[in-house]
Amino acid sequence: MKFKSFKLFMLFGVLGSFTTFAQEVGQVTRLVSPEISASNDVTFRLKAPSATSVKLSGNWMPNIPSANGMGGTRKMVDMVKDDKGVWSTTVKALAPELYGYTFLVDDVNTLDPSNLKVARDGTFRTESLLYVPGAESDLYWAKTGPKGAVHQIWYDSKTLNLTRRMQVYTPPGYDASKDSYPVLYLLHGGGGDEEAWPTLGVAPNILDNLINSGKAKPMIVVMTNGNPTQAAAVVVTPPLPKADPNPMGMASMMFEKSLVADVIPYIESNFRVKKNKENRALTGLSMGGLQTMNTSFDNPNLFNYIGVMSMGFTDMSRFGIKVDLSKRDQQIEDLKKAKPSMYWIACGKEDFLYESVVTMRKELDKHTFKYTYRESPGGHTWTNWRVYLSEFATMIFK
Amino acid sequence: MKFKSFKLFMLFGVLGSFTTFAQEVGQVTRLVSPEISASNDVTFRLKAPSATSVKLSGNWMPNIPSANGMGGTRKMVDMVKDDKGVWSTTVKALAPELYGYTFLVDDVNTLDPSNLKVARDGTFRTESLLYVPGAESDLYWAKTGPKGAVHQIWYDSKTLNLTRRMQVYTPPGYDASKDSYPVLYLLHGGGGDEEAWPTLGVAPNILDNLINSGKAKPMIVVMTNGNPTQAAAVVVTPPLPKADPNPMGMASMMFEKSLVADVIPYIESNFRVKKNKENRALTGLSMGGLQTMNTSFDNPNLFNYIGVMSMGFTDMSRFGIKVDLSKRDQQIEDLKKAKPSMYWIACGKEDFLYESVVTMRKELDKHTFKYTYRESPGGHTWTNWRVYLSEFATMIFK
Repeated sequence: MKFKSFKLFMLFGVLGSFTTFAQEVGQVTRLVSPEISASNDVTFRLKAPSATSVKLSGNWMPNIPSANGMGGTRKMVDMVKDDKGVWSTTVKALAPELYGYTFLVDDVNTLDPSNLKVARDGTFRTESLLYVPGAESDLYWAKTGPKGAVHQIWYDSKTLNLTRRMQVYTPPGYDASKDSYPVLYLLHGGGGDEEAWPTLGVAPNILDNLINSGKAKPMIVVMTNGNPTQAAAVVVTPPLPKADPNPMGMASMMFEKSLVADVIPYIESNFRVKKNKENRALTGLSMGGLQTMNTSFDNPNLFNYIGVMSMGFTDMSRFGIKVDLSKRDQQIEDLKKAKPSMYWIACGKEDFLYESVVTMRKELDKHTFKYTYRESPGGHTWTNWRVYLSEFATMIFK
Repeated sequence: MKFKSFKLFMLFGVLGSFTTFAQEVGQVTRLVSPEISASNDVTFRLKAPSATSVKLSGNWMPNIPSANGMGGTRKMVDMVKDDKGVWSTTVKALAPELYGYTFLVDDVNTLDPSNLKVARDGTFRTESLLYVPGAESDLYWAKTGPKGAVHQIWYDSKTLNLTRRMQVYTPPGYDASKDSYPVLYLLHGGGGDEEAWPTLGVAPNILDNLINSGKAKPMIVVMTNGNPTQAAAVVVTPPLPKADPNPMGMASMMFEKSLVADVIPYIESNFRVKKNKENRALTGLSMGGLQTMNTSFDNPNLFNYIGVMSMGFTDMSRFGIKVDLSKRDQQIEDLKKAKPSMYWIACGKEDFLYESVVTMRKELDKHTFKYTYRESPGGHTWTNWRVYLSEFATMIFK
């Protein structure tokens, strides 16, 4: 059992910003968890003397699919209690990555109280974060060196009749420069919102690191909220109006319309931006991949770099969504004529939407439509989406 | 027991942004918690069939002080299990406020999994958030209407030899305007960081609401990281260098020096700012109150509005801090001569630093130094600090 001394913590605590001052003063030590060894063995610890069982659930653990392929359960690890009531387990040689994990205390999900790094995964859950260092996760860390800024701003969407929130990354040097910059529009998936890419996606760190090493061009990155009924992430919107979801759901393509009619003009009026096709890129994952397809099909001359992550041509009717496919052949031809410099499709081999990407490629091939295909291991995961962004960002505006 | 249907959640989930896709599909319903009635009765629910005990801990609950006045425990409420394994309790007529709470599952703190609104209280904990609506909490909500922006930016501190993060609020209309604005420097307490005021302090909402109703002047609000050893909040800094805390601790007054030498020049070069004493205000809570005192004593002509929240003249030696008090009489005289328009002191009657504020007022009275004193109920709490900001912001730049 390992504790960390917190003399300074206590000192600051006494002058501190918390309600229950009195409770904290005794807390001069805190369990160290997670603890990462030089060989990336990771030890997790939780003090829970009254618990009957404590398990570790991490997103590196395999999922056991259910019979219909749609359900399943994550394989979890039982933690072991010592005589002080501290439960622990060590995971050997975890691959470098940014992970999410929780403890299950008598089957209830809890954060790791020793770990202040947490992230919300959309409307699903809040998890503790674990960075395991190494080559594969090197772009995800905040490092010394020049840094971009993230602006949380609100813009009026006439299309959606909402004042909406988005996050805009400006690259290192933006404020000091008088240059205009190219813009990447970066869309999240279903269940996510405008906080997804800046947090779980670590887009600001990835861009800072790629730009500082010369691997990506300095660019502005616009991270919108892709849910057309929402003004902003649920965490900031309790009293804000919510549009009726029926005419505004994903199938309405209302977000796509607002992206073109509201977001792009706002960015091009309020930031120093190069306002032409050559300097616009669009990519998104899952639902955002669908929105990327829809937007680029409907506006073939708007974007020069298009990236579809973890999404293909899927039969949306299984989700109760009717999509008009009668125009698709013409849309593919129109986009082909527009000759975007890059149409990039990326998918994991184990992605549940893998077959939809196979279908999409077949359809595009029929039209001899040029695209680049990137297949990775793994499934429908942030691990893949961070890798895809890390690659996509190096190939655009060049 | 009350469940909420999540058909849309499921639909988006299928196209979703999460790793464990398979686990989520079954989750078509989610417990409603917290549920707030028209009379502000609040019901909390947690599904935990395997737990032996579940308690509710909320920061509206009284703290039972220990014998030495420095410790204590929060009075908690036992929740009751029904035959489905759902634990619940109802708190009657909670006063309108923004609260933090957790569940204790067999004595381990957990978030409310039904509630996505969470906030980190500095280095102490992450809690679920509960907004109870009403007059007293009305300023804390995001509302329709014009909105300011929050900019997460990094600046170079030569004083601290770090590239550091801060959050800057620009008011509604800033981008569209060509005006210059006054600036409020708003400091957090011990254990906090640059994320404290934008989250638990809800400063952006308070300012939006006060400015939109004409009660406060449009202003820029600068929320720094007041820990001189830190580049940024621990959640974003894993690999960033940390200065040696010994020469850089609170007693070093190095943050105060960097505020004047690095932060103010950065803001005045990078934002449209009125660059004179009349248009600068400084306030902070607890440790930030100490920093407010120190900075204004050392720079008597820099700020026209000074607010010291929940901090007075205290014997810092009990925290192992040596402060040179030999200059204080002269400092008070110098600040008196500089005639700031307002020197505001605010403290709760039950604040553990209350006596230090009594001492401070006596010292200032000896010098016939003019100040305004605001005494509130309650203690060293975010409830008070939000109220103080809400009042302070209406009195400055007028």
